Amino acid sequence: MRTARHPELDEMTLVLVMAALSDPIRVGLVRVLADGEERGWGQLRAPVAKSTLSHHLRVLRDAGITRTRQEGTRCYVTLRREDLDERFPGLLDVVLTAAHADNIGNRVTLAD
Amino acid sequence: MRTARHPELDEMTLVLVMAALSDPIRVGLVRVLADGEERGWGQLRAPVAKSTLSHHLRVLRDAGITRTRQEGTRCYVTLRREDLDERFPGLLDVVLTAAHADNIGNRVTLAD
Repeated sequence: MRTARHPELDEMTLVLVMAALSDPIRVGLVRVLADGEERGWGQLRAPVAKSTLSHHLRVLRDAGITRTRQEGTRCYVTLRREDLDERFPGLLDVVLTAAHADNIGNRVTLAD
Repeated sequence: MRTARHPELDEMTLVLVMAALSDPIRVGLVRVLADGEERGWGQLRAPVAKSTLSHHLRVLRDAGITRTRQEGTRCYVTLRREDLDERFPGLLDVVLTAAHADNIGNRVTLAD
């Protein structure tokens, strides 16, 4: 992983956040991270290739939705919930509610 | 214009709606339609080619965000606000608030 670049609050844009949340795998990743826990990338299960999963995680990070932390050779990810709620109040809740109701992204899970 | 196909409430998907709202021109169109008035396509001003504007209007319609009505050779468009509010409660308000705060889509205007 290259050094992760995370947008500051004022660099986050509505258009990038909406685009990031317009994919069921990425919505699923947000859902599994919604409990606030930091997760190792290896814990994330999704019905896509590893490289595709990395791409999705990068899109989420670049939009400011998640924060990636590297520790040695391992990567960890958390949802930037407070930042999102401050920058776009209500958006995450609306998306999580709709995704839950429609089972969007429920093929993304956590490893046991 | 081909015969317009409008998704029913249960056909509207979060992913398509989010994707439709991930473009500043389309967000701008939603903003000018947010007063609830039906507008003729000829009234809509945007810094893009006419064919591009038609594309954006089609994306909004296909996602269920707008309703297009044809009268003779003219097309009219309205925001499906009640449908959106029923299907994805809170989403439109969150997007309109964020777009207003960040001046997203403010190059889309109505002709005098």
